[in-house]
Formats: sequence, structure tokens, C-alpha cells
Amino acid sequence: MNNVIIGQSGGPTAAINASVAGAYVRAKELGAQKVFGMLHGIEGLVNGNIIDLDIYLSDPTNVELLKRTPASVLGTCRYKLSDASKDDTDYKKIFDVLEKNNIDKLFYVGGNDSMDTIMQLSDYAKDHGKPQCFIGIPKTIDNDLPVTDHCPGFGSAAKYIATSVKELIRDNQAADTRNPATVIVEIMGRNAGWLAASAALSKADDCTGPDAIYLPEKPFDMDAFMKHMKELSDKKKPILIAISEGIKLADGTYVCELGGDVATDAFGHKQMSAACKVLADKLSSELGLRTRTVELSTLQRAASHMASLTDVREAYQCGFEAVNAANAGETGKMIIMKRMMYQLGGNENNWSSECPYMCSYGTYDIHSIANYEKMVPDEWITSDGCGLTEQFEKYARPLIFGEVTPIMAGGLPRHLVIKEAL
Amino acid sequence: MNNVIIGQSGGPTAAINASVAGAYVRAKELGAQKVFGMLHGIEGLVNGNIIDLDIYLSDPTNVELLKRTPASVLGTCRYKLSDASKDDTDYKKIFDVLEKNNIDKLFYVGGNDSMDTIMQLSDYAKDHGKPQCFIGIPKTIDNDLPVTDHCPGFGSAAKYIATSVKELIRDNQAADTRNPATVIVEIMGRNAGWLAASAALSKADDCTGPDAIYLPEKPFDMDAFMKHMKELSDKKKPILIAISEGIKLADGTYVCELGGDVATDAFGHKQMSAACKVLADKLSSELGLRTRTVELSTLQRAASHMASLTDVREAYQCGFEAVNAANAGETGKMIIMKRMMYQLGGNENNWSSECPYMCSYGTYDIHSIANYEKMVPDEWITSDGCGLTEQFEKYARPLIFGEVTPIMAGGLPRHLVIKEAL
Repeated sequence: MNNVIIGQSGGPTAAINASVAGAYVRAKELGAQKVFGMLHGIEGLVNGNIIDLDIYLSDPTNVELLKRTPASVLGTCRYKLSDASKDDTDYKKIFDVLEKNNIDKLFYVGGNDSMDTIMQLSDYAKDHGKPQCFIGIPKTIDNDLPVTDHCPGFGSAAKYIATSVKELIRDNQAADTRNPATVIVEIMGRNAGWLAASAALSKADDCTGPDAIYLPEKPFDMDAFMKHMKELSDKKKPILIAISEGIKLADGTYVCELGGDVATDAFGHKQMSAACKVLADKLSSELGLRTRTVELSTLQRAASHMASLTDVREAYQCGFEAVNAANAGETGKMIIMKRMMYQLGGNENNWSSECPYMCSYGTYDIHSIANYEKMVPDEWITSDGCGLTEQFEKYARPLIFGEVTPIMAGGLPRHLVIKEAL
Repeated sequence: MNNVIIGQSGGPTAAINASVAGAYVRAKELGAQKVFGMLHGIEGLVNGNIIDLDIYLSDPTNVELLKRTPASVLGTCRYKLSDASKDDTDYKKIFDVLEKNNIDKLFYVGGNDSMDTIMQLSDYAKDHGKPQCFIGIPKTIDNDLPVTDHCPGFGSAAKYIATSVKELIRDNQAADTRNPATVIVEIMGRNAGWLAASAALSKADDCTGPDAIYLPEKPFDMDAFMKHMKELSDKKKPILIAISEGIKLADGTYVCELGGDVATDAFGHKQMSAACKVLADKLSSELGLRTRTVELSTLQRAASHMASLTDVREAYQCGFEAVNAANAGETGKMIIMKRMMYQLGGNENNWSSECPYMCSYGTYDIHSIANYEKMVPDEWITSDGCGLTEQFEKYARPLIFGEVTPIMAGGLPRHLVIKEAL
């Protein structure tokens, strides 16, 4: 095997580095002489900023540390390659770096935008008779990539969100009974509500779960919301609701926009401000409720101290499988996960994914993945629009199972730092 | 030993329930027939809302679960007893409940306001020839109780804050290099900056630590702040600063007040809104910085999933020692912790508290504690006013050592619920 390179892109997750670990380990097993890392993703590659990962990862302890390190250890970027037919400057630079370093396999860990990069690069290689293979490794806390059962990164974020929401519910329910508070927890997710939905996982016999959960998949009906909150508050009990940052009215206006200006990022995504503040102000001024807002913010994508073992293992395996796929000559593909289904009681119409939960791995054409988004299915949202059905729980619960014991030093989780990426 | 009762008051912590566990276990060891719990603190006691804790705690697994449960398991309150000389209604009701239930020892886990309650009750008992003993058990994430070396609850909050800040720094430093962000993390602490100071503990050879930390102990100089931020941003690197919610200008105006209205709670404390938003707006409009704010909010007092073992053990021991003190006939006291000092190298002028860190326990007159606040010493703040010295680190680091393994079920930490308190 010639040399390979791996990079990371987009928003970090608690499991994104496990994919680098998996790809590194497998490439070495398959005889790659060098495994390079792009510093700050494709933007670094364009500029020739790459490092030999042996410096850090030849020590197996560091591989373990890497699996427990949040945020992209190699640095990330939000860099969109231009259309090669209009401007191929970046492409020429990239293939120049690959050829000079004898790299014939490129792996990119990321979400929708990063898969666009893999698509552009593999298409360019095909169009220009280049031999390199390009494989995408799924990663996004948003869980919105199509085809794959779920995305590495989601399980850890979901575990952190469900844990934090459970603790916030305890905190709120323990409070002064005379003046119960209404807590609004704002959770990431522009268009897909998977993360906010995860708040539902806090429900168990030791936790009531949130009183309502609002996802961007359903138009947000302000009148129905206020009516529901009035009914809840009439019970004079502490209330906690979870909302997705991306909830929007039927006319497409984001709830957060009702509170003021928003900006737009390099990919044309609207930057959200706090929808929870808009709702809290309304509940306070119109219903006289005592409100508190909690934005889980970037904490939810960085909390490797509460990572899901299932998630970290799967992220590792996705990196591992990406190398296998490229080694078999595949290109222009993303690694996907498929949940195993078990036939029950010899009945060919009765299948379950629950005993035990397990995923197999495969590849899928990047053209059917890049720039598509997977939403929470309509039938997994309760008919009142503010809850999740048992089907969601069956889907999501196995993804938060197990803990990754942090390696502690000085009372804090230890992280691997790649100094060149700082 | 006759029956005893324990209650919890004020803002919860991740370790407050460990004190209930310690008091329960010790009272049972000393032969107490019944250990009652007040539901929602002294307010519940006034109304006769008490339960027999044997229902929940006679099972040792539940005692372990209790140590891992955040927020006041018995419910809390913010109820200030009236001056008995003006209105003794509450006192009569309380002593009536105590006498009817053969309770002669009362324990109250709380912070400054709760110690006021212990003072009022013990004074009333003395003035009226009542035999009951009243002992305060320190608890506050704010770490602002005087006399005691530190307060149970602080270590766990500090560990969570330092861990989260470390993760946020990783997240920010991994980001897109073209447009580095300035992250402002807002941490609890109205008057005392212990919690914000804990962000400094994130610094290690795998973490730069925050670029600046602003505490309420030092007047906040807006011009100096803007100048410092300009210097930092000129380096074109990601920036993360930590601020206490209570930072205020030299004239006493809270920074958060520069952004709008504030309210006042039952004890006359000003309710903070977000100082981080005020500063972020200013940095954005005046220096053109891309900012992000993170409010650790109630997460930081509820995060038992990242509790400090040292803290939980000490909180347990404080409950344990409170029962010992009452059993010895003490009243009107609070349990305090004293850090062990070791003489080094036979030199009588050379003492250290570091090898190993350990605390002994004692009691202290509640009149010298109630309503006083302990601040971060001036000499522990660096001369530029926005950092902590090594002395702070020596003081705080041992308090975050060790982890309390959560008991997990369904992928989430398991909690004990006392249904009567909901």
C-alpha cells in the first residue's frame, strides 16, 4: 500500500478522532508506509500543510488518547472547493501534493459539506485519469447524512444531551415549590431534529423526561405552543422543554429570527441565535412564567468526557472500513452503517434490530449522499408534534450505550494535542 | 439517640445528596430510630412535610445511588425565617413538628442563607429553653462560606467547569483558521469568583487554558478589557476567556446590567442576565471579532456525571460529622474542613498542604459564618487582574481529584428519586 492521507472537516464531534485512529491503525496494518494528516482539512491540503501521523500515533497509548480527545485533532475547516470546470486551481494544488508524497488514498471525515468535497475530488480524478481513491467517513452530531443508519458523532452527542437534560430536570424539579420555573433547553440542529429528539432518551422510571420537545421537522405553531405551555403551567409544576435551534414557523421564519438579526456562513447556512430566548421572553411577558434558558451550545459536540462507547467504536470502525474500501480500489464512496435485523420466531415477516444491536459496514455512492439531508421521520414524532414515539427510542437508545473511560490526569480528562494543528 | 431530621436548602450541587447519605448512615450507626427528611427544606418542615428516609435509604444500593444523584433529592427552598422576636409563627410550627416526632437533632445542608436558618433556630431554642441541637452542613458550589477551607459542592462544579472549558478550548482551537472565534464562557458566581477561577485548572501541557479570566473580586475595567482583547485578537488565534456572571465595574454596576434589566430574588440578591452577551456584542461591534458565548448555567451545579470523588467523599463526611457533633451535644454550629499541613524537612517554618492532600473536620460557631462571604484572596489573582496564580492551583487542584463512577442504566446515569419531593 502506498501512502495515505486523512483529514477532518466541518463541526467537530466527540468521536471524530476515533475515525482517524481507526484509519491510521488499519492503514498501518495493510502496510502503508506513511499515514499523513491534513492540517485543517482540505484547506490545509491545498496549501501543502500535512504531517506524518507516525510522530503522534506510533505509540498505542496515544491512539487510545486520540479516541478520547474531542474536536478535530488535525484541525478542521469550512472550505468549499470551487467547481473544477470553472476554476481548477485548488485541484491542481491538491493532486500535486498527493503525487509528490506518493499518496494514493484520501480519507475525509465529515458531514454533508465534506462529502461534497469527496464527490468533487473523486469526479475530478475520474475526469482527469488520476489513480487516487477518495473515501468519505461519515461524521456529524446532526445525524442527517442519508443512507447510513446513523452517523458517528451522533451517539455521543445524544448521550451528553440526554444526560444533561436529565440532570437539568432533576435540578428544576428539586427547586423551590412556590415559584416553579420553566426551563427551555436549546439544542443544536438547523434542519434535522435528531439531537433535540435525543432529549427524549432522558425519560425513564427515575426521570419524567422533557414536558415537550420541538423539532424543526414540524412547523412551529406559536399559538399551539402558547396554549400547551399555558396548560402545563396551570399544573404549577416545574416545566422543562427541549427545542431545536432550527425550529421555524409554517412560513419558514426561524423562531430565532423573531428575536433579531441572523448572519450567513460560507456555505449559505443561516447562523442561528437563541430561539430559547425568544420563547422565554414570550412566556414571561404573556403568561407571567419564571423562565430559564439553557443553550447546550458547543458543549454538546465537544463533551468527550460523556462519549458513547458504541459511538466511539463505530467511528473507529468507519475509519478502519474506509481504508479497507480504498484498498479494494473503491473511490467516490462514503462508508455507511447498516443495522442488523434478526428474524424472530421463524416468522419471515417479523424482524427486529434489538437482540443484540449491531451494525455492519458498507460503502455507498457519494453522489447519492453529498448535499442530501435525512430528517426525523414523521411517524416518529407524536401526533401532537411535541414528542417522540417509541420507534425513535428503539432507534436511538442503543447508540448511547456504554462509556469510554476517560484517561484522567490532574483530575481532568487527558487529550492528545497535535501541536502543528494549533 | 432520638430521632433526627435533615433538610436541604438553596441552590443544589452535585454533592449535596452525599451529605444526606453521610448523615443518614451515621445517625443509624448511632442508633437513631428514625431519620426524617424535610421535603423542600425548612418551608416543608414548617408545614409538616417530612418523610421517613428508611423507605429509601435502608437499601445500601440506594445510598450509593443517592451519592450520585444531582440536585437536592429532598427538594430545596429559598425560605427565610422571619425574625422570631417579631413573628414566631414559623418557629412554633417547627418546634411543634420536632416535638411531636421526637426529633432532637436537626441538620441543614446549605450555603449562606441556610446557615442563617440554623442560627435563627439554635438561637430560638436557647432563648426558649428547647433541648434540640441544630447543626449546619456546608454546601455551595460558590465556595464562599467563611472559616471552612472550602465547601462541599465546589470541587465537583470546579471539575465540571475545568473539564468543559478544556473541551471548549479544544473545540475552538480545532476550528477554521481563517476566521478564529472569540469564545466567552460565563460561569456562576455573584460575588465570589471561585467557580470562574476554576477555569484556570484546565491549563496543562495538553491545554493552553483560558486566555483570560475575570472575577467579581476585581473591578472590571472595560477599557483595559478591550485593550487586552485587541492585543489577543491581533495574534489571529482562537481566543477563549472565562468570566464570572457577577463581574462589575468600579462604580458597582454589573456588566450584565449594561445589557438590560435585572430582577431581585427573595433574599435581595440581584438576578444576573448574561454578561457574556454584553461583552460579545461589544467585541463584535467595536473590534469586529467573531464571537460565541457559552453560559454554563445550571449545568455546572447539576453535573453529577462529572463529580469529584474528593468532593463527594467530603460532602458525605460532613454529613457524618454533623451527626457526631450533634450527638456530642453541640448546637448552633457548622461543620468546617481544615486542610492538613505537613512540616517539611524538619524546618518549622516550612509547611505544605500537598503531601498528601487531606482534611480534618471540626465545628464552628454559626454566628461567625451565617451571612459572611469568602472571596478569592487578592494575592491569588495575577497582577494584570485576569489570571490566577499558582497558589490558587495548589488550593483548588486537589479538590477535583478522583471520579465517582456513575451507575449507568439505559446508557445514562441512574438517579435516586424521592417521589414525595416532586
